[in-house]
Formats: sequence, structure tokens, C-alpha cells
Amino acid sequence: MNVCSSKEVNNVVGAEGLHLIGDLYQCQTGTDLMVDAELLKSACIELCKRAGLQVVGNSFYPFDGAGVTGCVLLAESHVAIHTWPEYCSVTVDVYVCNYNMDNSAKAQQVFDGILQLFSPADAKTKGVQRGEV
Amino acid sequence: MNVCSSKEVNNVVGAEGLHLIGDLYQCQTGTDLMVDAELLKSACIELCKRAGLQVVGNSFYPFDGAGVTGCVLLAESHVAIHTWPEYCSVTVDVYVCNYNMDNSAKAQQVFDGILQLFSPADAKTKGVQRGEV
Repeated sequence: MNVCSSKEVNNVVGAEGLHLIGDLYQCQTGTDLMVDAELLKSACIELCKRAGLQVVGNSFYPFDGAGVTGCVLLAESHVAIHTWPEYCSVTVDVYVCNYNMDNSAKAQQVFDGILQLFSPADAKTKGVQRGEV
Repeated sequence: MNVCSSKEVNNVVGAEGLHLIGDLYQCQTGTDLMVDAELLKSACIELCKRAGLQVVGNSFYPFDGAGVTGCVLLAESHVAIHTWPEYCSVTVDVYVCNYNMDNSAKAQQVFDGILQLFSPADAKTKGVQRGEV
């Protein structure tokens, strides 16, 4: 077993970053994006790339006759999204760490972009600072 | 465009659920699980299955000479994990919605299992209730 022996065990620079959490209700832009996994995947990846984030993987799964669950893996952490067309609701997580630089603005750009995609009439959002002791 | 027209637009039963967030520091169990994407993937999927959750997809990516970023997609939402072996730290998210039943205990079981895998000497954890108006 390789023992973790960094001198910087108390220095969690790697994980530091902004995690934006959104629960979107009464989405106004129709169900197409909520039921089509390929469409949702493309939209999420495009938003990440446009914000200057590096996409390193993804997985999206369409439920039969229902919504989609998916994630985009980033060099800077992840985006996770779940749609409930039967309730016109969506939950989204955008966590972007500051490994080499402060990426908070990029996290906000992707998060805002996803909200624009769904145009919720109501939303509960919060930001959590990750990786700070 | 298919318009979202559920009578239950204010009822977000689908998205309701417990989202457990953990930032783990000074992990004591070595770096093997932090750098081997296949090992980490198998461990996470096994924990989900053992908790009675339905795995529907995954994506794990190993960074060259560094950590792993990954997610497990569940019928009940997702697990996301990022490792920083250079700082002996890990961040983890376990979000399990209550679509058909209260799955909070399953979320806690997976979360506790991941903490056991890494044995952090220090951890910052919090629970966020998702999907409640």
C-alpha cells in the first residue's frame, strides 16, 4: 500500500472550489431537453466547453418514459443533472475546483447557462465552498 | 416543443432526497484507491449495490500521475468522487432521491462506506435536503 505522505496534508488547495446546487421548479422550456439524453448531454458539454472547462468524460441515461440522469466529468470536477419531466423539475450540481486558478466564475457561467436552458419559474439555489478546512 | 404541463408542478416529489457532501482530509488508507480508476469505480459501484441502489451508468477518469475523477449514475440520482493523492484528500457527493420511497438511509450507508474506504483523520461533512420548495 502506498501511504499518503504529502507534507501538504493540511493544505487542500486541490479540492477548494465552488459547488453550486440548484433545484429548478416549473421549468418553462418544454420537456424535449428533459427526456432526450443525447440533447441534454450535448447542451451540458457545450456549456462546459464554452466556459473554458476541460471535459474528460460523461455518462447520461434516459429512463423509459421519464427523465434523464447524467454527469459530465471535468478536469476541474463535475456537473450532475437529473430531470423530472413529470414534475417539470430539474436538479443540477456544478462543482468546479480551483486546482490551478480560481474557477468560480466558470462554475457560475455553466450554472447560469443550465438555468437558462430550463427557464424555471421557481428555483432554490445555493453555493457551497468545498475543500476548505 | 412539448410543454411541461403536469398538474403537480409545485409538487417535487421526484427530486426530494438527501444529498450528502464530504470533504475528506488526511486520508489514512494509502493512495492505491486514489490513483486507480478501475479500483475506485468497482468500490463505489459495490457500495451502491450493497445499499440496494440501482446503478445505471458510470464514468471514471484517471489523471496522469495524479488522482481520479468519477461518477456513478443511479436510478436514484448519483455519486460523484474526486481524489487528490498529492494532498491526501477526497471530495464526495452522494445524492439519493426519494422517488418511490425514503432512500436517506441508503445515501448514508454509501456515504459512510466511502468514508471507511479512505479513513480520513479529518472530514467536513454536510447534508442538503434537495427538491423541497
